[in-house]
Amino acid sequence: MKRVVDLNSDMGESYGAFKIGHDEKLLEVVTSASLACGFHGGDPHALLLTAKMCKERGVEVGAHPSLPDLLGFGRRRMEVEPEELFSYVLYQVAAVRGVAEAVGTRLQHVKPHGALYQMAWTQADYALAIAKAVRSLDPSLIVLAPPGSEAERASFRHGLVVAHEGFPERGYTDEGFLAPRGAPGAVLTDPKAVADRAVEMVKDGIVRSVTGRTIELKVETLCIHSDTPGADEVGRAVRRALDAAGIDTRPLGSFVGGRPR
Amino acid sequence: MKRVVDLNSDMGESYGAFKIGHDEKLLEVVTSASLACGFHGGDPHALLLTAKMCKERGVEVGAHPSLPDLLGFGRRRMEVEPEELFSYVLYQVAAVRGVAEAVGTRLQHVKPHGALYQMAWTQADYALAIAKAVRSLDPSLIVLAPPGSEAERASFRHGLVVAHEGFPERGYTDEGFLAPRGAPGAVLTDPKAVADRAVEMVKDGIVRSVTGRTIELKVETLCIHSDTPGADEVGRAVRRALDAAGIDTRPLGSFVGGRPR
Amino acid sequence: MKRVVDLNSDMGESYGAFKIGHDEKLLEVVTSASLACGFHGGDPHALLLTAKMCKERGVEVGAHPSLPDLLGFGRRRMEVEPEELFSYVLYQVAAVRGVAEAVGTRLQHVKPHGALYQMAWTQADYALAIAKAVRSLDPSLIVLAPPGSEAERASFRHGLVVAHEGFPERGYTDEGFLAPRGAPGAVLTDPKAVADRAVEMVKDGIVRSVTGRTIELKVETLCIHSDTPGADEVGRAVRRALDAAGIDTRPLGSFVGGRPR
Amino acid sequence: MKRVVDLNSDMGESYGAFKIGHDEKLLEVVTSASLACGFHGGDPHALLLTAKMCKERGVEVGAHPSLPDLLGFGRRRMEVEPEELFSYVLYQVAAVRGVAEAVGTRLQHVKPHGALYQMAWTQADYALAIAKAVRSLDPSLIVLAPPGSEAERASFRHGLVVAHEGFPERGYTDEGFLAPRGAPGAVLTDPKAVADRAVEMVKDGIVRSVTGRTIELKVETLCIHSDTPGADEVGRAVRRALDAAGIDTRPLGSFVGGRPR
Repeated sequence: MKRVVDLNSDMGESYGAFKIGHDEKLLEVVTSASLACGFHGGDPHALLLTAKMCKERGVEVGAHPSLPDLLGFGRRRMEVEPEELFSYVLYQVAAVRGVAEAVGTRLQHVKPHGALYQMAWTQADYALAIAKAVRSLDPSLIVLAPPGSEAERASFRHGLVVAHEGFPERGYTDEGFLAPRGAPGAVLTDPKAVADRAVEMVKDGIVRSVTGRTIELKVETLCIHSDTPGADEVGRAVRRALDAAGIDTRPLGSFVGGRPR
Repeated sequence: MKRVVDLNSDMGESYGAFKIGHDEKLLEVVTSASLACGFHGGDPHALLLTAKMCKERGVEVGAHPSLPDLLGFGRRRMEVEPEELFSYVLYQVAAVRGVAEAVGTRLQHVKPHGALYQMAWTQADYALAIAKAVRSLDPSLIVLAPPGSEAERASFRHGLVVAHEGFPERGYTDEGFLAPRGAPGAVLTDPKAVADRAVEMVKDGIVRSVTGRTIELKVETLCIHSDTPGADEVGRAVRRALDAAGIDTRPLGSFVGGRPR
Repeated sequence: MKRVVDLNSDMGESYGAFKIGHDEKLLEVVTSASLACGFHGGDPHALLLTAKMCKERGVEVGAHPSLPDLLGFGRRRMEVEPEELFSYVLYQVAAVRGVAEAVGTRLQHVKPHGALYQMAWTQADYALAIAKAVRSLDPSLIVLAPPGSEAERASFRHGLVVAHEGFPERGYTDEGFLAPRGAPGAVLTDPKAVADRAVEMVKDGIVRSVTGRTIELKVETLCIHSDTPGADEVGRAVRRALDAAGIDTRPLGSFVGGRPR
Repeated sequence: MKRVVDLNSDMGESYGAFKIGHDEKLLEVVTSASLACGFHGGDPHALLLTAKMCKERGVEVGAHPSLPDLLGFGRRRMEVEPEELFSYVLYQVAAVRGVAEAVGTRLQHVKPHGALYQMAWTQADYALAIAKAVRSLDPSLIVLAPPGSEAERASFRHGLVVAHEGFPERGYTDEGFLAPRGAPGAVLTDPKAVADRAVEMVKDGIVRSVTGRTIELKVETLCIHSDTPGADEVGRAVRRALDAAGIDTRPLGSFVGGRPR
């Protein structure tokens, strides 16, 4: 059986005159894009232009909601009340969904951003607030989540389809979490190394931890960061390696969850 | 024939710990509420709670998009590019639409806020950007606009249904514009005087200008401000006077544009 | 010997059209005001107007720096890097200092706001970042801190004078921390009860915890919140009770640290 | 007599993860830097780091206050009340002044940013609000203004020293205003052409308009933009051309206004 995987990237994170990311180049590589919603980046006009580009290139779009922290680019944990988080996520996903529809496409997925993604990985109350918000808006939306995470559990509990995500550019701890930025091996930048990990994740369902242990990791989508230097080169290397390994790259909505969209 | 009119008010304008407006009391009086979208007030949680209250009370909801100016409460003109304005309006209306749907209701209308409303009254490029944004999201949305305004013209041009709006609390110039705040007679606070004007607008299709001239003004919806002191008292007086004059008050979606919703 | 204490309140927290607090009435009661710096509330114009009012009433001013969280009113913990916190505090205190000088007064003290105050209570890295920022700007500024806190320790280490602060409106745990809002006895609203605690803190240097234990608490300044309902009534009751007990109320700069200003 | 001129550039405009400008390279060229204050860019940490770099390189610092419009990078005109503008400018200049002092330097000048600079060029009420704010904080601060502008007039009226500014990278209309961006000849990017204009401004006190007319323009400081592509190359070309023409480049505080600092 031919393997298939989705390649996703965060996009549309520019804010007015502040440009960030390598969106145009990565659009040639990825199959899904998670669009910033304005809370950590991504002003409404950047969002619209990026959604249009995705539509033109046949890249499926998702919402990339964040904690409300433009100054910290959504990378700082905040003690937000779960009920408020519910509202923040609902608002952001609703906005991106409407913009997607206005440019003639349809929202495929939701992927929390930065610190929110990390918090939803291990904190049930946050994970549940996010899942509930997504469900209240549209139960056909797919949630991106790490395998075995609270985010996965909460999404299942609310009847949502989950796409399991792997990070070939990031080091994993023995426990299967991402090694904190700054720790040795936390970030990989060598295109070949990242590409090898990507293939291994999809073909063998494993990843090597920073200590060399083999960890099981079954994924349907791989994240390529757009805001790191050389992101486009890494993206192309991953795509080429997947092609060479006979792995299909397709938007996750076409094969995750087993239901037609 | 029995006359009918919609009573609308701006709502959900609080922002975190900053509370503003007399929403709860006015919900007993109005038939439509225009919900702040976060750009001039109205954080996502305030938006959700207000949308829920509207749903419970049977008050129809609309979006109340603004220029991006929280510090100025959206009351200051800004030189925004029309293409950017398009994106701002699309984003805001999309967000409120999603929240409305999540609480089990449906977005009825769009009413620009503050300086944006004023700019769309007389500037065709702004009016067109707004109309285009609304249309691109949902052509069944009703746009609130002053009779004879550029906003009305632009909405018609984009095939949108318009609800003509009158402001019984505000003084009108001889040319049919609102007298600028600060000018004599610009703001009426006496509940009886406001109520009399409201009845006159609906029954006779006229309003007296600040100089005493009679101006034609055919309206389908009357605005009651929620953030002025005594707003709820004024609202009740208007509602009672309309009742007494045999005028029906109903959400505008039920009678404007002649199409079933 | 006649006892003396400073009465402080947070002020100038309004933001544009969003009005908050009972500043005018509390200015008749307090001797020091901590002015919001724009990060949790307190736009530049509100800051200026409040500084002017303080100058006119002979109330000394301080800066009330916060985490950057307008939406959460600075009440939510955030994982900010200490070096960034240093910059945030420096910027905010500098801004308020300049505004104070422009209206003809002089900055007396610094009191971190909300979650930042709580974090600096127990986290040395945060406390040190704040103290270092204050010192780098003006080593004669007094820092408000709970007795025995990391904030006190860090201030001493950087050679700053500390004014120890008590909260007669708030319940204390047996360990001498504030009982978390929401816990039983966390917030006192009865003016007489608050006034009695205020006198006890100053005269006897103690406070009763929520379980009834007696805790040592030597303070030079008492906080009266400005944004709670009935804040002005509580403030007057405290002031009257201190007067009746023969306790002088004076700005802390006139008696703390033993150096002339 | 040897001619002298100041070379200035806007700096520190990055905002959190959003990096903008070529600050490091331009610091090798300019003699004065106008530091963003947080309203259009320039978060407190970027401000601190940039102020430190300036201090290390011997570049004098000024404040670069803006309208409150991060999304529009301060480039959009807004209808702000002059009294509010006074407060905005006071707050921003005070913040930067404190940061400058904390890193061991001293604020030299104030230069309004973007749309605010344009508005103060021709609108007396805005120019006066800015001048009044600067004066209320520190009357020894130098204000950068176009020759013959309302900003110059207002600064003189408030007893402030003015440094007249020229823009060798920008086209001038026959009336001596900047040609609006987008108009033909509005922006020059050829390093040699900009350098020639710079020398002509300083040596001959003239500039050629977009129609070829010769306009008188006596300047003490020349602006090199930091956020345009190739900004550093242009800066180096200007500096070399000034050197070759025997023109000294020195911080404006050392020669403008004829008073020792």
